Amino acid sequence: MRDEDGRTRVVIEGVRPEIDGGRFPAKRIAGEKVVVEADVLADGHEVLSCVLLYRKEGAPQWIEVPMELVVNDRWRGEFTVTELGAYRYTLQAWVDPFQSWRRDLQKRVDAGQDVSVELQVGAGLVREARGRASGDDKKRLQSTATALARKGISARKLRLALDEGLAKLVSRYSDRRFATTYERDLKVVVDRERARFSTWYEVFPRSCALKPGRHGTFKDCEKRLPYIAAMGFDVLYLPPIHPIGHTHRKGKNNTTVASPKDPGSPWAIGSEEGGHKAVHPLLGTLKDFRRLMDKAKELNIDVALDISFQCSPDHPYVKEHPTWFRWRPDGTLQYAENPPKKYEDIYPFDFETEDWRELWEELKSIFLFWIEQGVRIFRVDNPHTKPFAFWEWLIDEVKRDHPEVIFLSEAFTRPKIMYRLAKLGFSQSYTYFAWRNTQREFTQYFTELTQTDVREYFRPNLWPNTPDILTEYLQSGGRPAFMTRLVLAATLGASYGIYGPSFELCENRPRERGSEEYLNSEKYEIKQWELDRPDSLKDFIARVNRIRRENPAFQSDWSLSFHQVDNEQLICYSKGTEDLGNVIVVVVNLDPQYTQSGWVELDLDKLKVDPQRPYEVQDLLTDARYLWQGRRNYVELNPRVVPAHIFRLRRQVRRGKDLE
Amino acid sequence: MRDEDGRTRVVIEGVRPEIDGGRFPAKRIAGEKVVVEADVLADGHEVLSCVLLYRKEGAPQWIEVPMELVVNDRWRGEFTVTELGAYRYTLQAWVDPFQSWRRDLQKRVDAGQDVSVELQVGAGLVREARGRASGDDKKRLQSTATALARKGISARKLRLALDEGLAKLVSRYSDRRFATTYERDLKVVVDRERARFSTWYEVFPRSCALKPGRHGTFKDCEKRLPYIAAMGFDVLYLPPIHPIGHTHRKGKNNTTVASPKDPGSPWAIGSEEGGHKAVHPLLGTLKDFRRLMDKAKELNIDVALDISFQCSPDHPYVKEHPTWFRWRPDGTLQYAENPPKKYEDIYPFDFETEDWRELWEELKSIFLFWIEQGVRIFRVDNPHTKPFAFWEWLIDEVKRDHPEVIFLSEAFTRPKIMYRLAKLGFSQSYTYFAWRNTQREFTQYFTELTQTDVREYFRPNLWPNTPDILTEYLQSGGRPAFMTRLVLAATLGASYGIYGPSFELCENRPRERGSEEYLNSEKYEIKQWELDRPDSLKDFIARVNRIRRENPAFQSDWSLSFHQVDNEQLICYSKGTEDLGNVIVVVVNLDPQYTQSGWVELDLDKLKVDPQRPYEVQDLLTDARYLWQGRRNYVELNPRVVPAHIFRLRRQVRRGKDLE
Repeated sequence: MRDEDGRTRVVIEGVRPEIDGGRFPAKRIAGEKVVVEADVLADGHEVLSCVLLYRKEGAPQWIEVPMELVVNDRWRGEFTVTELGAYRYTLQAWVDPFQSWRRDLQKRVDAGQDVSVELQVGAGLVREARGRASGDDKKRLQSTATALARKGISARKLRLALDEGLAKLVSRYSDRRFATTYERDLKVVVDRERARFSTWYEVFPRSCALKPGRHGTFKDCEKRLPYIAAMGFDVLYLPPIHPIGHTHRKGKNNTTVASPKDPGSPWAIGSEEGGHKAVHPLLGTLKDFRRLMDKAKELNIDVALDISFQCSPDHPYVKEHPTWFRWRPDGTLQYAENPPKKYEDIYPFDFETEDWRELWEELKSIFLFWIEQGVRIFRVDNPHTKPFAFWEWLIDEVKRDHPEVIFLSEAFTRPKIMYRLAKLGFSQSYTYFAWRNTQREFTQYFTELTQTDVREYFRPNLWPNTPDILTEYLQSGGRPAFMTRLVLAATLGASYGIYGPSFELCENRPRERGSEEYLNSEKYEIKQWELDRPDSLKDFIARVNRIRRENPAFQSDWSLSFHQVDNEQLICYSKGTEDLGNVIVVVVNLDPQYTQSGWVELDLDKLKVDPQRPYEVQDLLTDARYLWQGRRNYVELNPRVVPAHIFRLRRQVRRGKDLE
Repeated sequence: MRDEDGRTRVVIEGVRPEIDGGRFPAKRIAGEKVVVEADVLADGHEVLSCVLLYRKEGAPQWIEVPMELVVNDRWRGEFTVTELGAYRYTLQAWVDPFQSWRRDLQKRVDAGQDVSVELQVGAGLVREARGRASGDDKKRLQSTATALARKGISARKLRLALDEGLAKLVSRYSDRRFATTYERDLKVVVDRERARFSTWYEVFPRSCALKPGRHGTFKDCEKRLPYIAAMGFDVLYLPPIHPIGHTHRKGKNNTTVASPKDPGSPWAIGSEEGGHKAVHPLLGTLKDFRRLMDKAKELNIDVALDISFQCSPDHPYVKEHPTWFRWRPDGTLQYAENPPKKYEDIYPFDFETEDWRELWEELKSIFLFWIEQGVRIFRVDNPHTKPFAFWEWLIDEVKRDHPEVIFLSEAFTRPKIMYRLAKLGFSQSYTYFAWRNTQREFTQYFTELTQTDVREYFRPNLWPNTPDILTEYLQSGGRPAFMTRLVLAATLGASYGIYGPSFELCENRPRERGSEEYLNSEKYEIKQWELDRPDSLKDFIARVNRIRRENPAFQSDWSLSFHQVDNEQLICYSKGTEDLGNVIVVVVNLDPQYTQSGWVELDLDKLKVDPQRPYEVQDLLTDARYLWQGRRNYVELNPRVVPAHIFRLRRQVRRGKDLE
């Protein structure tokens, strides 16, 4: 016969959050709630009790929180995670005879039945609870049991039996011998706030020199910081800062022959001057780099480093660890390729090497080296071309001692692989945002990202452009298109980033028609940017980022909700804080050419707006205020002026005054 | 560092069927396919191979079936279950270097690249495969490796390298050292066909006597068999056939005082004459019962027994096993109740008894006793008031030796509990069908039952009436309502049943307004039914059941699909065999009072009908034929004549002749 006691009658199923049967942790930010739901069932009609158990990983004791029945056997409870690192949670439930007895006693009393035997039953239950109690509680339970057991029925005795205080007291000493503990300890990983809400700016340090023709340095970057901070960015992401290989170095526009002056791609990492733990001598020294980080920190900017696990032919690893690479039968090293394309300036690591343990340890040491220098955010290049198991191990290892570290997954690949990487531990992930263009596409994709279980582990980071991605929309739409994409990225995503100054200067010339590569891409040459050009979007960006900072609705992804618009060139969505104290409605014209207008139909129920009263919407981009009423309201957007409204909704308006 | 080899690069997730992370088995019928899907992912861009592994439970060896990539990292494979009992299945997948090499070689050749080194790489891969092969295969691989390794490139050599036969041969000897085997062995339980397709008739044997006022016997039931068989039923379900208690016996219409003549409720099981393993002396002997089963079997009818785990106060268990019941402080036994209602003629078992093991074993022995007599179908009364763990254990124990046994769960309770019982092993389950009335309700509920994962474990059995359930629809709708509900039950569900002769005689008088109890319910008295009444639905039922037998589309639930109708009093749905050789379109008038008409809009894509050509629909209820064209067609149904069309669809019609 079965091992478990057959009197264990409760089952717990359908627990949320629970990713892939508990295989992966959910993600939260310190200070956030973890709302746990589960189906809790038993045979029969008795009352159940259910508690949520949680603890910081490693803590010896579970903390217990009561769960409440919501509806249809669904229970809910919550706890708040306060510290970085990992928490565990599980559930326990049991059939509760005292609660059942109390509920039934009330029904019997209401029906005018003789409950004298029932009171004896109750006395017995209280007596049992007494057996599990101690101190004052024990005494009180004893005296109650004695009182209930006395012959005769009185109003006083019934009040005593049905007393809520007694119910609470008894439930403290429930008989849990046959309680069901959920079979899994589930995990939640807690990150710092920047993992949820971050505003990224990517810049090539070598293009930061003030004088034309010079190779930029970390010192030049320092001088660029105020400009970046003024636009409101809080993460400064630098492409690889390491020495660059010279063998098979790429020339301008990715040509296979470089002139002696060509600086090469920063992603062709390593030379005789060092590898992944060195800095490019022309950028400065490690000390310069640390100074840059310190200066950035003063402006509340995190410096994020690019981690690209690949080597130029000149990387020291190639000589020191030949077994970490794949060798061809002709005695040459296997370069990166996507047949028939060849990338001869780059050697991938061979993760199937016999020495994989050594390789993994070394790669981990690269992260630890930069953490030592002060880096706390890593943008990981192409993680989908390295084994899943490696990332799971690595992120876990790093975060054990450094739970504040944030990993951004730069995987532009098939959806399930992107999601898998997020499950494995990446704190944020690049998305398909750049290639979503229509109302329908945005609605579908962002509903998937923010309103399904995906949101438990995948934190989107939206990039309208990158050094690799100049979309057709930007190429053809010009400045209005850049404004549109900026507003979309900044308001659809709590985290977004731009590659600048390319972005704010609306650089949109492709290498050739049909290509997403830039003409004269900064990946292969040093650029000089005219930051003060009058058509720069820097002030617009600054305003949008200030709106993000000032409105907590934008600082998390989960409240996103789309609203109907009768013109498919327009899109409308809202975000709000949990208490709806801050509610924003965004309307964007997706057409960079023409003015578009239409009727927006707000879901007022969801926004808790009284449909019978006027309400004010204030455009935070222009400060214009409109008085709206009911669900349907008219909007009109000229992309040559401002292609979007970012409305702050003010719920009640009387005599022109906010009463919110 | 981690235990698993870091070179295990493939992950397998999102496997289907997989119920609650593999906690419960899926269900199939012998001869059916198990189509298994999974997301199979690895880092990088190499080609993967994936196989499905399955075996009969207990068989020493896995059988391997290749899986195919469908789209977006989703793989599919299938196997057929042929024997009753349990099967196991799992998956294995690996990065396949030879397939990757072959794909890339083709690309390189197409691009006109020099592939001489590539051929050496290929030779190496073939050589490795040779090391894992033996016999002729080993020889062939050796000679191919030698040929590929020879200097120089020729068209012959390229043909050899890219040869499909070689690819197949090499893949037989894939390197699976770093293959990923899915972490779970999943289970599928295989039942006989009647678990999927069955037509039930419930009858009280004691009401089967030919002469008025007499207590019917098993012999009388025998005489009733041809009548039941003529209507096309294949399961004859008998309420409990055991001795009935006399203490607190219920009188007519469930009154608490019985007259000496009242026979009592068959569910008040047990008296001095015996308990769950005895038959009521007035019904006959065990031998009579076995004879009834034999006679039924000749007509292809299974006799299904009611298993109600509860006892009358006079049941032998009460004296023999007092610890199996709950005792009250006043020394009396705890009767069944739903406060403030009391059911004093029934004692529930106390599953929280210390002697639960002994109780479980005894209850199991009741099933085994009746299996010994020849019973193979059990309709289990109120399983939701006995512990889940008990049912899981019991069904598993019984089916280990008797995989042909079918269990029907009579749980009318909350949805998650009904589903849980099905997951635990019940072969079929009662549903909410009786209380679904509108187009919208039917569509929603039956889409849930047949088009979601629920169908993997929950097999619906649809009952328009039972001795406990006389719905308001039947009470108020009269004979047309009975016809409507019969067609709905028989065509929405592969399994359905009626409680007769009450049903075919359209008995619809409630005990009182607002009650679902019958007036003068057969549960408390012996009835005499006038089977040959001219308004009996027996011929209509016979026709509907013949249509079910002749049209395999009706014999399974999975193909159900609803189609638009512009009148919400009508409902339209189709079912079809997998090859669409048999396609049925049903249209039912849900209004038992008035003629309703409307335009039906068929999803012709789904039915594989050419929208450009006329097609014939033949009403199997009336034999009328109609020529339809395109998606929208007109229907009109008078409930006083026939409230439904059951159309067989004939796809191509030319000059009035079927060319199907």
